[in-house]
Amino acid sequence: MADNDSLSEFLASAVDAAKKAGEIIRQGFYQTKHVEHKGLVDLVTETDKACEDLIFNHLKQLYPTHKFIGEETTAAGGNADLTDEPTWIVDPLDGTTNFVHGFPFVCVSIGLTIEKIPTVGVVYNPIINELFTGIRGKGAFLNGNPIKVSSQSELVKSLLATEAGTKRDKLTLDASTNRINSLLFKVRSLRMSGSCALNLCGIACGRLDLFYETGFGGPWDVAGGAVIVTEAGGLVYDPSGKDFDITSQRVAASNPHLKDAFVEVLKQSE
Amino acid sequence: MADNDSLSEFLASAVDAAKKAGEIIRQGFYQTKHVEHKGLVDLVTETDKACEDLIFNHLKQLYPTHKFIGEETTAAGGNADLTDEPTWIVDPLDGTTNFVHGFPFVCVSIGLTIEKIPTVGVVYNPIINELFTGIRGKGAFLNGNPIKVSSQSELVKSLLATEAGTKRDKLTLDASTNRINSLLFKVRSLRMSGSCALNLCGIACGRLDLFYETGFGGPWDVAGGAVIVTEAGGLVYDPSGKDFDITSQRVAASNPHLKDAFVEVLKQSE
Repeated sequence: MADNDSLSEFLASAVDAAKKAGEIIRQGFYQTKHVEHKGLVDLVTETDKACEDLIFNHLKQLYPTHKFIGEETTAAGGNADLTDEPTWIVDPLDGTTNFVHGFPFVCVSIGLTIEKIPTVGVVYNPIINELFTGIRGKGAFLNGNPIKVSSQSELVKSLLATEAGTKRDKLTLDASTNRINSLLFKVRSLRMSGSCALNLCGIACGRLDLFYETGFGGPWDVAGGAVIVTEAGGLVYDPSGKDFDITSQRVAASNPHLKDAFVEVLKQSE
Repeated sequence: MADNDSLSEFLASAVDAAKKAGEIIRQGFYQTKHVEHKGLVDLVTETDKACEDLIFNHLKQLYPTHKFIGEETTAAGGNADLTDEPTWIVDPLDGTTNFVHGFPFVCVSIGLTIEKIPTVGVVYNPIINELFTGIRGKGAFLNGNPIKVSSQSELVKSLLATEAGTKRDKLTLDASTNRINSLLFKVRSLRMSGSCALNLCGIACGRLDLFYETGFGGPWDVAGGAVIVTEAGGLVYDPSGKDFDITSQRVAASNPHLKDAFVEVLKQSE
């Protein structure tokens, strides 16, 4: 395991990379309204690609022996196998639909796993200027201020987040809305804001009490946020209650008080 | 009907009031995490009341002959009958659940109706510092920059917003989630962010393409946003496609291209 000094340096490097990528996102964000459809598809692809290249280049130069997994690179057939080596897992633009529409919940997500454990995390929303950071064993922060999960212990007073996802087949969609229906009887209200990484950070800073999502893109959606949640005093787990598997495309998160009750209602709603 | 100079003055007065109330909301927003449950209920009530008193006092002093309808005053048994007189309709704190949880979609909403027509609107989110304004016949603005609705003409590429509402009886909730299920087959994705007034402004600035909600609190949720949508080139209507009735607790909004298709799928999903 890397020592604390290295981890702080890794975090600082990831923050630098996220801020530079955030600038590219911000520029694109305000352009989407002014381009035609074909141009829009190009703008999204180019922004995604430019951000991933920038982050990878930045970090590879500093840490040439580290491994890298990125959403764009993986989509292009690159290697996504997670090993025990220090591995940077990057979503250069989480919340692509929001980016296209100009809805201000978009972010860069950068996570570093060591021995497969999320160890350093940066999630940066360049539109509303929120930078979430965390280092394993050293706390979680929003714009430099310590954050912690909510102290809520009752489902009925809890704010739940989930997402409609991208799949539109009847089986998936019916299961998804049936689950939402069941959960709405148990919680205070529901938010869907379109970014998995920002939902995790919402749990970390106590804006949200409960979050689950299944069938999202890959480990890049959760690698940055996972360590931020745990360092804020929260838990990240499989919606079944089992251990979180970063490669499973399934995630749930809450404070420790709510976990058992949340897992129970998630089971009932299957 | 008031002349243009008066309308500009009314808007300026409403913006002043909204910014002062916004300061109270901002202070409360960052305190909610630090108070116990009983204290939290008090904080919300006090913030709501303090904001409404401030806005009413500010505007009554300037326009002593105008009428006033406010969420808090109405809840306390005050008069909510809308007449043809110039009437200020105020939601001092829209997005109360968000306020309680620290989720950054909260706003002050101030609308002025003249002959029952929404004529001046101000919606101010003091947390992410977005000020939406509109005057009938004179355009809509976000932080002083002109805004317009999206140019989207296809449901399948549209971003839809709605809310889970506050009712938790089985009939309402089943109808609500069945409708969401039907709509998700037709649109790109769904956002729920917890503020009716900000959803309307999302339509106005093109972040959202489609919005509907039924069963919300009252005319204060829509009075400010309605004129902002129409001045941004959008339409506000009853989800059935009929004319918008500000007192009906039913609203839909979109750009003009999408209205017919949206009303059709809303009907199918009933």
